[in-house]
Order: sequence, then C-alpha cells, then structure tokens
Amino acid sequence: MTTEKQVLDRIERIRRRRPVVREERITLAHGSGGKATRNLIDAIFLEAFRNPLLAPLEDGATLALGSSRAVFTTDAFVVSPLFFPGGDIGDLAVNGTVNDLAVCGARPLYLSAGFILEEGFPIGDLRRIVASMAAAAEMAGVSIVTGDTKVVQRGKADGCYVTTAGVGVVDRPATLSISAAQPGDAVIVSGPIGEHGVAIMLARGELGIEADTLSDTAPLNGLVADLLDTLPTQVRTLRDATRGGVATVLNEVATASGVTVVMDEESVPVRPEVTGVCELLGIDPLYVACEGRLVAVVDGEHAERAVDIMRSHPAGAEAAIIGWVGEDPPGLVLLRTAFGGTRIVDMLVGDPLPRIC
Amino acid sequence: MTTEKQVLDRIERIRRRRPVVREERITLAHGSGGKATRNLIDAIFLEAFRNPLLAPLEDGATLALGSSRAVFTTDAFVVSPLFFPGGDIGDLAVNGTVNDLAVCGARPLYLSAGFILEEGFPIGDLRRIVASMAAAAEMAGVSIVTGDTKVVQRGKADGCYVTTAGVGVVDRPATLSISAAQPGDAVIVSGPIGEHGVAIMLARGELGIEADTLSDTAPLNGLVADLLDTLPTQVRTLRDATRGGVATVLNEVATASGVTVVMDEESVPVRPEVTGVCELLGIDPLYVACEGRLVAVVDGEHAERAVDIMRSHPAGAEAAIIGWVGEDPPGLVLLRTAFGGTRIVDMLVGDPLPRIC
Repeated sequence: MTTEKQVLDRIERIRRRRPVVREERITLAHGSGGKATRNLIDAIFLEAFRNPLLAPLEDGATLALGSSRAVFTTDAFVVSPLFFPGGDIGDLAVNGTVNDLAVCGARPLYLSAGFILEEGFPIGDLRRIVASMAAAAEMAGVSIVTGDTKVVQRGKADGCYVTTAGVGVVDRPATLSISAAQPGDAVIVSGPIGEHGVAIMLARGELGIEADTLSDTAPLNGLVADLLDTLPTQVRTLRDATRGGVATVLNEVATASGVTVVMDEESVPVRPEVTGVCELLGIDPLYVACEGRLVAVVDGEHAERAVDIMRSHPAGAEAAIIGWVGEDPPGLVLLRTAFGGTRIVDMLVGDPLPRIC
Repeated sequence: MTTEKQVLDRIERIRRRRPVVREERITLAHGSGGKATRNLIDAIFLEAFRNPLLAPLEDGATLALGSSRAVFTTDAFVVSPLFFPGGDIGDLAVNGTVNDLAVCGARPLYLSAGFILEEGFPIGDLRRIVASMAAAAEMAGVSIVTGDTKVVQRGKADGCYVTTAGVGVVDRPATLSISAAQPGDAVIVSGPIGEHGVAIMLARGELGIEADTLSDTAPLNGLVADLLDTLPTQVRTLRDATRGGVATVLNEVATASGVTVVMDEESVPVRPEVTGVCELLGIDPLYVACEGRLVAVVDGEHAERAVDIMRSHPAGAEAAIIGWVGEDPPGLVLLRTAFGGTRIVDMLVGDPLPRIC
C-alpha cells in the first residue's frame, strides 16, 4: 500500500523533471491546453525562443514600447462548428484575445486578425463571422486595425481559422501574475463554469443530447477594470478559464506560485444542464472550457469585496468564492467533495474535447 | 477598333466602382494578393471593421500607445511545401512580419506566433520550424514573446500553419505611405525579383524543371533603417513585394497616390534562371513573390543616393532604379518593354501560384 505522502512525492518528482516530448507526432492532446500542451510549449517553444519576456505561464507578454508599458498576446481559433449557440468563431476570436489582455492587467485597445480560409468556404459565412467580430470588438471597446487573409485548397483546412493578436496598454500599478498567489488568498470565479465547452459539444450533434446551453463567450475587460480600480494590489492573479477549464488554471497557479489550492466542490457554480451533460459524458465540468469566466486569486481579507464588485457587473452576476490558497503541499490542487472527501485535481491529460476554441 | 483612351476610360470606370464580391464561395484567387484579395478586403473586411486606423493599403497599422507611436501588423503563413531551398515556413513567418513593420517605418521589436498543427505532424519538423524562427528572430533583432498552439484533426490542415503578428516602435519622423508617391519620384528595388516564388514552384517538384533558385527570404529592417537614417523625408513609400509581386505593389502605389508608374523592363533585375522558369511556365516575373526585396519610391533627386545606400547593405547589393513616377494617367502602371513598346501592367488576376507564403 502506498501512503498519500508517497503519492505526493512521486507527483513532485515527475513535476521537477525537465520537460521532454516523447511522442514523435502531434496528437490532439497537444492542443488540449492541458499537460501535453504544457510539455510541448516547455520542450519545443520555450527552449527555442527563450527570452526574458516570453513568460510561459502568463496569457500575454508585458513589453516596454518607448515610454509606455503594453501587453501583447495571440490566440489561434479552430473551433468546430464555426457557429454554435451563443456565438461563433468571430466573437470567440475577439473575446479570447481581449480577455487575455485584460487578465494581464492591460486595457485592450487594438486587435489584428489573420484568416486562413478553405477554398469553397461560403462568402456568406465569412460575412457573418466578420460581422460578429465587428460587433464583439465594439462591445469590448477595441479596434481591429490590421489583418491578413490566406486561402488553402479544399481539404487543407476546415472552412475558416482565425488567429487574433492584441495589444493593450498598462496604465495601472497592478502586478498581476500567475506566480503571485499567497496562502490565505481566496479563489473566485465570475460565474457558472463549463458552458462554452458543453454548448460546443451539443452543437456537434453527435451526442443525441439536447439542452439549452449557450456559450458564455464574452469580453471580461470591463469586469477586470472594475476589480482593479478598487483592489489594485489585492488582486494577485487573473485568468480566463478557457481550454483545460478552471482545473487547469488552478493547477498553473498552484505550480507557479508554489502553493496548494483547495477548492470546495459545493461552492463551484455549475448550471444543472452543464452538470447533467457532463455526467452523461463522464467528464468533469472543472476541465470544461469557459470563454467568458474570470478566475481571480484575491487577498483573503478582500475576497467578499471582490465578489461584491464582480456581482455589480453583468459579466460577474453569479461570482462566487470557490476555494482558498494554502501552503502545503506546494503545487497541488485539492477538491473537497460534496461527500466530505478530498481528491487531487490534476492537470488535464489527453483531450476529451478537441477544437473547443 | 478601340483607342487607348477608350481602354483607359473603361479601366477607370471599373476602378471607381464600389467593391463587391460576386462569388458565392472563396476561391484560391482570394488568397493571391491580387485583384480578388483586394475586392474581398474592401467588400468584407473594411466594410465591417471600418475604423480610422485600419489603413487598407498599408502593411500595418500605426497606433498611439500611451505616449509612444507603434506599428502593429499580422500575416498568416500557409506556404507549401513547408521546407524549400533557402528557407522554410518558420523564417518566412518571422521575416514577413519583420518586413511589414519595417516598411511602415517602425523598428521591429516583438513578435507573436500562433500555430495550427495537423494531428500526426512530425514533432521533428516542428522543432526545425521553431529553430528556424528563433534564428530568423535573432538575425532581425526581434523577440518572439507570446504564442499559442492549436491542433486540428488529420485532414483539417496541411501539417503546419503559422500566423505571426508584430509590434514595432516608430522613433523616426518619416511619414511613409502608399499614397505618398509624387511625379518625379524614382522606383527602386533592392535586388533581383521573383526568387521566392520560383523556389517554391520548383520545390513542389511538379514541373519537371531543375534550377538552383533559392528563396530570397530575409529581414529588411536593417536596410530600411540605413535608408531612413540618411533620407528620412525623401523616401515616400516602402513595400516588400510578396504575394502579387512587384507589379501588384506598384499598382497599389499608382492607385493610392493617383500617379502613373512607368517601369523600364530592361532595368528590372531578374536572374536568368528565374526568367527561364517563368518563360517555361508562361508567367511574368513581375507578379512572382519575393520575400526579401524592398520596393522604394524615393524623391527623384535622391534616387542615386538611395541606390548607393542600399548597395552598401548586404540585403540590397543588387539594388536598381526600375522606373519613375509620372502624372498621367493616374492609377496606371506601364512597362516600357525591351522592344520599345509600352504595355499596361495590371493587378494580378487569378492565382497562378497558390500558397506561396
């Protein structure tokens, strides 16, 4: 029999290893946002591009530009289907990059858009996507200022892929970081989790399940601004929980900050239809992507205030404290279950939901 | 019989039309960089994203960021094959974005990279591409500071697509613009044209032709800096001649500036093997992509000086004046042929060379 201590020691040993990619070929898991993605980034990209600004675990890079500080970020979008309840690849691509800028503490200003189109893609669908990008940009208060379009032959893409990049200006003193969480901090989510992922799964129509779940795709910059205006130094870490879900974000916080995160299962807001679909499919909502939910680590003494601020904003109406940061064992995320037990919530392994964003 | 005047009138009428996309589906021509691309951009993207910073004919957007001026640009790369004589998709993606920043008068500083990988893509090939990006970034003096990776199922991409975006700072008084060309200006290219396109065509191995043509992929920021340091206001327009070639760039200059460009066929530097391949294929080198050649429109009185500056830089060793800007008829590019005739060089129609970059 192995003790809990032995299990934890083994996990710790594995975590300390220098990252290597053992596979010879790319698998869907490399795009999951979980463990395989992390490995690929560490072993291939960070190894080659090593520079002090490429902060691997942040959602964007903070740069000096003349006398200004800016954040720069990018995301590729390959979601399937392109149109789904609650949104489409267009608003997803705008909101995703807006949110990456916002959670780095920047005021999102400018976006670029690179399109890869498949020969034969309906122009009408492109118009819809572009209109949806324009509407999302207006809602988030950003401008799409530069772009590029390439076309590949039939069978060399899947209709339309969009890669957005974004630039925002940092005009606040906040020093948000994935490695800034401290024991005693509270973990807050801005609303119910897993809705984007479930909406996409249902939209694929392969499951024979019907439910009225809409994607939660939304810009978070307004919510973040409200939070940082009032609690500029008390907010330690902000992330939007996309690929890999809340569980992956909290694992990154625990690892980077060298802390434990203890979640309380009953406090995590999940709508019944999301719980239902996840139970039917045997997946855990904690790993399911959101596209408009903020995970915030906040000084424990100001946690209630942070929740109040979030709840005053439409994007955070159902905000809740879902856990606390502890000291030991460092690098782990634990879940206190509804039945009074505790289990380890590890990073996502494999990819149960490819092409979710 | 129609007179030249009637032909020109007809062209002018067509040019003044509000852009519409008549096709119902995307064709490869929409990715050519020529007429169909222009139409798609005008009718779909500009219509939806209309904002004062989205300058349709420039290679990047010039932005205010706090008290600094920056340029922001993006390009998607779908070149096939991924590896070709003289380069690969990795250095192409870095140099392409570096060059777009440079020709907007910015000092390129930071790049983002978004990867779309096909399931099954060899990790070894990804390593090669990433190493080549790192080397190109070092050579150009830029840092790749942020990125994203998505994976799509087998048959939904073609190995690897890379979308780079770039940010550069504008620390010169130069006001380069595609619409700044004036009668009396000289048109200069920094070296022989068409090499990238010919190298790609040959690398596809479908033509049964062998030649030792290497892609000219290279960063142009050093060359541009030399030029603007000495001739900050005398350089009117800078472009890198990629998709659509020199002919397309000059058509954009002629249209945007409301001038005629008269090229002298015998002055255009083209290596014999490029001429040979183009003749065999029945295509015009003026439309074939370069990936490391600068097209500069310079005040005529300083043209010789500009050529001298370019020739002192390794990237411009074979620079030459290839034509002059005239007043009338506005919006046209004319070529004085080696036989003493004159013909109109229109924008590229269709796409003789899909997925060249």
